[in-house]
Amino acid sequence: MDIVRTVADLRTRVSAWRGTGETVGLVPTMGGIHEGHLALVRAAGERFDRTVATLFVNPKQFAPGEDFGAYPRDEEGDAGRLDAEGVDLLFVPPESVMYPEAHATRVEVADLGSILEGAFRPDFFTGVATVVAKLLLQVLPDAALFGEKDFQQLRVVQRMVLDLDVPVEIVGVPTVREPDGLAFSSRNLYLSAPEREIAPALFATLSAVAEAVRAGADPEWRERWAESELVSAGFDSVDYVAVRDGATLGRYLGPYAAGQGPGRVLAAARLGKARLIDNVAL
Amino acid sequence: MDIVRTVADLRTRVSAWRGTGETVGLVPTMGGIHEGHLALVRAAGERFDRTVATLFVNPKQFAPGEDFGAYPRDEEGDAGRLDAEGVDLLFVPPESVMYPEAHATRVEVADLGSILEGAFRPDFFTGVATVVAKLLLQVLPDAALFGEKDFQQLRVVQRMVLDLDVPVEIVGVPTVREPDGLAFSSRNLYLSAPEREIAPALFATLSAVAEAVRAGADPEWRERWAESELVSAGFDSVDYVAVRDGATLGRYLGPYAAGQGPGRVLAAARLGKARLIDNVAL
Repeated sequence: MDIVRTVADLRTRVSAWRGTGETVGLVPTMGGIHEGHLALVRAAGERFDRTVATLFVNPKQFAPGEDFGAYPRDEEGDAGRLDAEGVDLLFVPPESVMYPEAHATRVEVADLGSILEGAFRPDFFTGVATVVAKLLLQVLPDAALFGEKDFQQLRVVQRMVLDLDVPVEIVGVPTVREPDGLAFSSRNLYLSAPEREIAPALFATLSAVAEAVRAGADPEWRERWAESELVSAGFDSVDYVAVRDGATLGRYLGPYAAGQGPGRVLAAARLGKARLIDNVAL
Repeated sequence: MDIVRTVADLRTRVSAWRGTGETVGLVPTMGGIHEGHLALVRAAGERFDRTVATLFVNPKQFAPGEDFGAYPRDEEGDAGRLDAEGVDLLFVPPESVMYPEAHATRVEVADLGSILEGAFRPDFFTGVATVVAKLLLQVLPDAALFGEKDFQQLRVVQRMVLDLDVPVEIVGVPTVREPDGLAFSSRNLYLSAPEREIAPALFATLSAVAEAVRAGADPEWRERWAESELVSAGFDSVDYVAVRDGATLGRYLGPYAAGQGPGRVLAAARLGKARLIDNVAL
């Protein structure tokens, strides 16, 4: 696996593959590589001739006071894990390459980017949409793969790509979980040992909401129930638990029914230094 | 010249050219084709094997109360003029192709997009940056050509393309003028015969400002002089006359001097139903 740090070097390498007819899959990451990222790399390897990964902790998707400084950074370890999984090329741009001094352009996805996560992290999805637009246009792969763990991010990226006619397919890959159900996340590193025991309650609670709503329970009532359940389990606070349409992330009108299309139960909750998010299919 | 109306048809045609190694230049237009557009087409024809033009009156760059409804629309006439000048392919997307119902993504260029024209038309450059991003990614040409007549637009598009790593070169083409100096513009059609007599005062006044500032006159003083000069000439009102750095469109610090880099004098003024803009090199 080669590592490149400039857009020119990146494009030279990708163009050479394209010139011989090889297909390219892209796996964007902020590092902190875990089993979830490796599942994306494996999925890319199954569908495409070449896999490009990127490693960039994007400052524009962190607000002041969030964990930009604390976010796990271990280029050597991350590169080793990606290499072992079959990544062909790793792009590690310095911040000066991604955001030179006069950089002034923002990509904003209205509505979808301002609800749920966006309501608690107002500039988050604009930061995500901007950096993903850049990465897609720097690499111009056939497809880019994103984990369903960040479900709203997946939908925001899909919307942005559709809206701007970015000629790249966006592929969602199912969440990878620890044996006890906790979704792999770079931020699990922030959990103390006792908090790590509490954390699987998030997936368990969302699964219970999904099962109840599928069985006919009122979504809003179950959202409230889940919030108190998470606090009882030991979470410090709950930002949201939301039963939503899986395509638009809009609220269901009335009780969930098979006719409403596939749904999703999404949540964010705080536990010690970590803010954990997760979601399950309805 | 063929006309296509879907992105799929557009891409099929452009891919076929690319497949045989032909280069492609793009000329985006809102119709109302005049000599200025034809100069863009000629410039594209000199540099690229194939020229694609687009015709789309972009609703997102008009505010309520602006001239979206009145903007000249004559697809047949425009297509004839572009065909005669050597355009190979004309893309005329319906609004439903450019902005399907759920469209939610905006491309915003901060600072550069909010000064001068942006101060008087707050959503204008976001509308421009969004539609140009789409057109560039729909066509993926080698280059796109824009008139210097819309000088701030040219700078906004260049900034956006650089910031998002859109792999397309942006080429500025000098303004084309009537013999009396009036810049060709689709909006000149709004001028009555007496107003048409007054209109060349815009170019004459900007040229006088440029000459005076080059000779050492104070830029701010000359801006004020030009505003009163335009009103004396018969303009109804002046939105701005501005002596600016030609790259950033920022103000000069202190008097203009050769060491400050190439400058630009830009203006917008109202005359009857028309709002005319123009600019000259310093």
